[in-house]
Amino acid sequence: MKRKVCVVVTARPSYSRVRSALRAIVEHPELELQLVVAASALLERYGIVADVIEQDGFEITAKVYMVIEGENLVTSAKSAGLGLVELATVFDNLKPDVVVTIADRYETLGTAVAASYMNIPVAHIQGGEVTGSIDEKVRHAVTKLSNLHFVSTELAGKNVIRMGEEPSTVFVTGCPSIDLAAEMMEQPELDFDPFTKYGGVGPPLEIDRSYLVVLQHPVTTEYHEAFEHANQTLGAIRDLAMPTLWFWPNVDAGSDGTSKALRMFRENEQPSYVHWFRNVLPDDFLRLALNASCMVGNSSVAIRECSFLGVPAVNVGTRQIGRERGLNVVDVDYDQKAIAEAIRERVYSGRGAPDLTYGDGQAGSRIAKHLAECELQIEKRLRY
Amino acid sequence: MKRKVCVVVTARPSYSRVRSALRAIVEHPELELQLVVAASALLERYGIVADVIEQDGFEITAKVYMVIEGENLVTSAKSAGLGLVELATVFDNLKPDVVVTIADRYETLGTAVAASYMNIPVAHIQGGEVTGSIDEKVRHAVTKLSNLHFVSTELAGKNVIRMGEEPSTVFVTGCPSIDLAAEMMEQPELDFDPFTKYGGVGPPLEIDRSYLVVLQHPVTTEYHEAFEHANQTLGAIRDLAMPTLWFWPNVDAGSDGTSKALRMFRENEQPSYVHWFRNVLPDDFLRLALNASCMVGNSSVAIRECSFLGVPAVNVGTRQIGRERGLNVVDVDYDQKAIAEAIRERVYSGRGAPDLTYGDGQAGSRIAKHLAECELQIEKRLRY
Amino acid sequence: MKRKVCVVVTARPSYSRVRSALRAIVEHPELELQLVVAASALLERYGIVADVIEQDGFEITAKVYMVIEGENLVTSAKSAGLGLVELATVFDNLKPDVVVTIADRYETLGTAVAASYMNIPVAHIQGGEVTGSIDEKVRHAVTKLSNLHFVSTELAGKNVIRMGEEPSTVFVTGCPSIDLAAEMMEQPELDFDPFTKYGGVGPPLEIDRSYLVVLQHPVTTEYHEAFEHANQTLGAIRDLAMPTLWFWPNVDAGSDGTSKALRMFRENEQPSYVHWFRNVLPDDFLRLALNASCMVGNSSVAIRECSFLGVPAVNVGTRQIGRERGLNVVDVDYDQKAIAEAIRERVYSGRGAPDLTYGDGQAGSRIAKHLAECELQIEKRLRY
Amino acid sequence: MKRKVCVVVTARPSYSRVRSALRAIVEHPELELQLVVAASALLERYGIVADVIEQDGFEITAKVYMVIEGENLVTSAKSAGLGLVELATVFDNLKPDVVVTIADRYETLGTAVAASYMNIPVAHIQGGEVTGSIDEKVRHAVTKLSNLHFVSTELAGKNVIRMGEEPSTVFVTGCPSIDLAAEMMEQPELDFDPFTKYGGVGPPLEIDRSYLVVLQHPVTTEYHEAFEHANQTLGAIRDLAMPTLWFWPNVDAGSDGTSKALRMFRENEQPSYVHWFRNVLPDDFLRLALNASCMVGNSSVAIRECSFLGVPAVNVGTRQIGRERGLNVVDVDYDQKAIAEAIRERVYSGRGAPDLTYGDGQAGSRIAKHLAECELQIEKRLRY
Repeated sequence: MKRKVCVVVTARPSYSRVRSALRAIVEHPELELQLVVAASALLERYGIVADVIEQDGFEITAKVYMVIEGENLVTSAKSAGLGLVELATVFDNLKPDVVVTIADRYETLGTAVAASYMNIPVAHIQGGEVTGSIDEKVRHAVTKLSNLHFVSTELAGKNVIRMGEEPSTVFVTGCPSIDLAAEMMEQPELDFDPFTKYGGVGPPLEIDRSYLVVLQHPVTTEYHEAFEHANQTLGAIRDLAMPTLWFWPNVDAGSDGTSKALRMFRENEQPSYVHWFRNVLPDDFLRLALNASCMVGNSSVAIRECSFLGVPAVNVGTRQIGRERGLNVVDVDYDQKAIAEAIRERVYSGRGAPDLTYGDGQAGSRIAKHLAECELQIEKRLRY
Repeated sequence: MKRKVCVVVTARPSYSRVRSALRAIVEHPELELQLVVAASALLERYGIVADVIEQDGFEITAKVYMVIEGENLVTSAKSAGLGLVELATVFDNLKPDVVVTIADRYETLGTAVAASYMNIPVAHIQGGEVTGSIDEKVRHAVTKLSNLHFVSTELAGKNVIRMGEEPSTVFVTGCPSIDLAAEMMEQPELDFDPFTKYGGVGPPLEIDRSYLVVLQHPVTTEYHEAFEHANQTLGAIRDLAMPTLWFWPNVDAGSDGTSKALRMFRENEQPSYVHWFRNVLPDDFLRLALNASCMVGNSSVAIRECSFLGVPAVNVGTRQIGRERGLNVVDVDYDQKAIAEAIRERVYSGRGAPDLTYGDGQAGSRIAKHLAECELQIEKRLRY
Repeated sequence: MKRKVCVVVTARPSYSRVRSALRAIVEHPELELQLVVAASALLERYGIVADVIEQDGFEITAKVYMVIEGENLVTSAKSAGLGLVELATVFDNLKPDVVVTIADRYETLGTAVAASYMNIPVAHIQGGEVTGSIDEKVRHAVTKLSNLHFVSTELAGKNVIRMGEEPSTVFVTGCPSIDLAAEMMEQPELDFDPFTKYGGVGPPLEIDRSYLVVLQHPVTTEYHEAFEHANQTLGAIRDLAMPTLWFWPNVDAGSDGTSKALRMFRENEQPSYVHWFRNVLPDDFLRLALNASCMVGNSSVAIRECSFLGVPAVNVGTRQIGRERGLNVVDVDYDQKAIAEAIRERVYSGRGAPDLTYGDGQAGSRIAKHLAECELQIEKRLRY
Repeated sequence: MKRKVCVVVTARPSYSRVRSALRAIVEHPELELQLVVAASALLERYGIVADVIEQDGFEITAKVYMVIEGENLVTSAKSAGLGLVELATVFDNLKPDVVVTIADRYETLGTAVAASYMNIPVAHIQGGEVTGSIDEKVRHAVTKLSNLHFVSTELAGKNVIRMGEEPSTVFVTGCPSIDLAAEMMEQPELDFDPFTKYGGVGPPLEIDRSYLVVLQHPVTTEYHEAFEHANQTLGAIRDLAMPTLWFWPNVDAGSDGTSKALRMFRENEQPSYVHWFRNVLPDDFLRLALNASCMVGNSSVAIRECSFLGVPAVNVGTRQIGRERGLNVVDVDYDQKAIAEAIRERVYSGRGAPDLTYGDGQAGSRIAKHLAECELQIEKRLRY
């Protein structure tokens, strides 16, 4: 009988990180995929990822609305709790053999706790990395609840083992997000017009020669500063006045601060050089990054996919502190001037060589293989 | 202004483990106690711990019913989720400066997650120990969510640091449960009649000379075997036919299996040598253990308090695997014969010398002092 | 395409009331049954009704644990809320054309609210009756949320219309619980030995000639009096000392008061004339009632099925105030002496003629027919 | 000892409807106000009503986030359920003598159920009116759960009694929303500039001579048509091209359809004659309505306050069907042409005489008086 692998997708970036693994699970003869779509992946505000998933040919087994409105710290906690309550019912009705949880968003802890408490083995993708902020707590807590660890880098694997996990349960598969990037490198050209395809706000821009891509998330534990942080990057972009594609951040405590900064800038400056997008398809976003002169902000795409792709990147602020990075990345503080200078320098340096720190493009199929072949067990014990 | 310390008590054993710390917090001039009583601590089935708490002179700030009935793995997960949802609201209304969570019961993770997500520093009591079963996952996940670690033993402290925690946040305070034991050693005699005071089921026993105390919890991840496990210990007690005080276990997935074994034994054997108790006050339970010839089962009291008290103990099965122990403990499998033999040997050997592995009786006041004086911060990062 | 009819069963008595309708729905060529089993129907404490349902040949579509432990008024409210949260997810995944809710238990309101808010037509069985206590509020609130009303009696139908419902949506089908009774009348003999089949507590009794059946639920809004109420009936039974089969009540706020009275009576009196049962199959319970000399307590079975069966009944206290009744019923207060006298008189009078107030045994098939043929709509408006 | 009156405010319009009653409760010597603010009253998207409440001098006793994001029918149900779960805990900790719930929003049912199940008397403001859509179900279900009925009109009172409520529990107090209007009539002039005070989107308009106020909510049970409905009214406004103040609707299933229509109109037409506002203070909104040439849409303000104020109104579509209305209102279908014509006619007819159908401005103090003096009881029974 096939092993039932239940994957819970709760957000746009989680989906794009796990898509190649989903495909490999569906194609594996000894695995059956149970796909649960929940949280912001169901919300219009963030692009209905559920629809994208179905367009990609996956069948959704169950949907669970679980985001409690407020976008603050209280509602993050409550949303995770509601997810835990309802995912337990879902798992009880689906009876999976293993549950897969992804990365470190606040809701992922609900998935890991529900499965753990129900004696279902938990497999975690992207554990062992070091960043900071609440993601740090979530990621390592999920590691302690997990029985299988599919890590992206050698260092992440070492970290997971250092935390007391059994080495035979830790697999350096590379990050499945690199799989998509690797596929794209075969035909890297920008093959669509983002202004026609996505609309968005602002004038159409001339992006044939050179453009920036900006994506800056609020940093959860610095809630009140989200507004100011966004303003520094906005200021840098104003100083440079290069063609800029700015992408709206995810749902998270603080995103209202960020949103406000973006809206005020737009209304006050009415800039001719910025175009704002929401809810771009993950492939299209990656292709836009791949062809950019520089990626700006604090998205992990700048550090993961862009290092593999060789795209120059300016990483702003604390969100990615501690995460391994390739030579493509320069780090700067929340400082308008420093950001502007770093972008200028990066654009000047140009495209670099691919870096395999985060994987070689085969993560998805490795994960599926391990899920099919690994011994699945729930008992574990701190190992030193 | 005083620091507001919010302690969430969710069960009878958690309360007795934290009582000396609660007292020290109340008495500390720079601390204000916010006491939240929740989960099985509100339920009649387990003795209404909330009432005991008020009789002990503490004021309860809020009560939260959160146990979803079913006593199985699904409802454990859902209960933790409901707790997370509601504790977030409670913390939002109380605005504590630090939240204290205790040990490793399934609901404690809800407390730690709620506080973490709300950027409230989390202090964890009894982290770093090694046991097995779901408690193991919960305990270490709580460590990864916590900012302050009040551990019971040197080894536990080392384990917490090995998991990547900052050494300056780890304090070997000893276990506050030992504080109560230390106090009791000053007047160790049995000063009440348990049959008169608690009723219970079964004939009154002659306990002046020698008696056994049994407390055996179901082991969560071996749900279906709970019935059989209980039967082995029951068989050993039948073979010995010594006066035995048997205490009903906690709420937990599997406790219905255990309950069934106890009920069937009682009805079939109608033993003259066993008396069954529920919901004995923590102090009285400890005093009964202190005067016992041997403590039997898998309660951590046998390992912690009894090692300090020098009371012989027979630890049955896997629940305490990996936990440090003193010379008072002998380990046996779920095997009627082995259990009976081990009890015989232990009773023969008699009382041992106190062992300070789990503390010297000052844990509560140390915890209060650290809570008052420590720098409280929420940001952390894996440290290697 | 078949109409999808979702029935939510939350308790033992609800199941037995709706079983004939479930069967008729399954057999109807234009209907598809979606059966959701939830709340106390999943709990061991009340007999796992889910297992009975499967043994009866029904397939369960989804299970939802939703009873929050505490058996008090706070947890009744919270359980209904949790049910509402989770049933919404279930309905969202099942997409029924109509949802059927039964009678007036506190959880049924969750079913009716979830369906109403999701624009799914709601059909209510057993509306329009008058009783008192919280059931009264729940029953009529469910009527106001419902689009189809399958009532048991002519008077109930009139009441529903008086409350402003459109007459064309009100169907006097009779009560489906009578269907089972009608079937049983074809072979009414007691065809099993309850002591062998169910065990229970107490000595086996001589029931060949004459026996009493007692079932007394706590009355929710008189929580603190539940203990005393139970004691009056217990006293009456002691005075009569007739062979008595006493059935344990349902989960409800207050049932701990009742339980305590039953346990104390058992331990203090050790009566030779009472045998206690839990979780008897609905058919077996009804057959035991059918052959009893008198039914005692406040169960609606005494008023509904027993009136059809002609079994004498003594109804104690306020729980059934306002409900229509046949000539089989005598009402008494919570008063030991009055209860004893009424039982004596009823036993003396003996079996009466069947009474069709609550139906003729065809309710289930009528309900299925209407569900298949009615226009299903969600819009409604107070009609006067 | 003062009676503790707990009022749960869940939305902007509920607050403005109940404010005069809140004030009267605070001022009454025998009442103590417990004010719970929940649901959309805490959300930035709808203007943080909690802040307005505090600026008005009320103290908030507890806050509860309970809106589950999605703005669809599933999440309406889940939000009500979460509210029920958490309000039960709040009531358990606050122990009110009576709970007041307002009107017919989907969350109000959670308030009424929690209080009913906990044996707390429920007082309902604005019961007995007839409208249609889901509000209709909610309003009458709340009536069946309530013990005291403070209705706005004579007819509403009759309806409540016809539904089987005891006449002595029904009080025609008038609607407290009229109290505010009555106060404002003393100094009716527009005393602020809405463009300066609220910003909003669109050009500042010339409103000295004549202007329209538009507020059109999506109708829940016609979810998919919300977009089209909004477009008809937008079309009418385009045809008239009069200065128009358009107010953004509440959170509700379907508001995303409405929002989309508004956004598309704005972007495509860039109209010089419309200005868009969000989150205007209730007093300011009312003052703008009071001075308008015509109120357009489906807000109940057009029917209640505007009838008292004599302001002409065009009511669009089904949302207010069945509600009593004064001579100020003309009803039209969702039809661009009909809407435009009706507005033209109403503007031409001009201001009418005050109409006392919905009250005389003393509702708040009457409600407080009854809350202080009424017998509070929980038991009720259908009365015919």
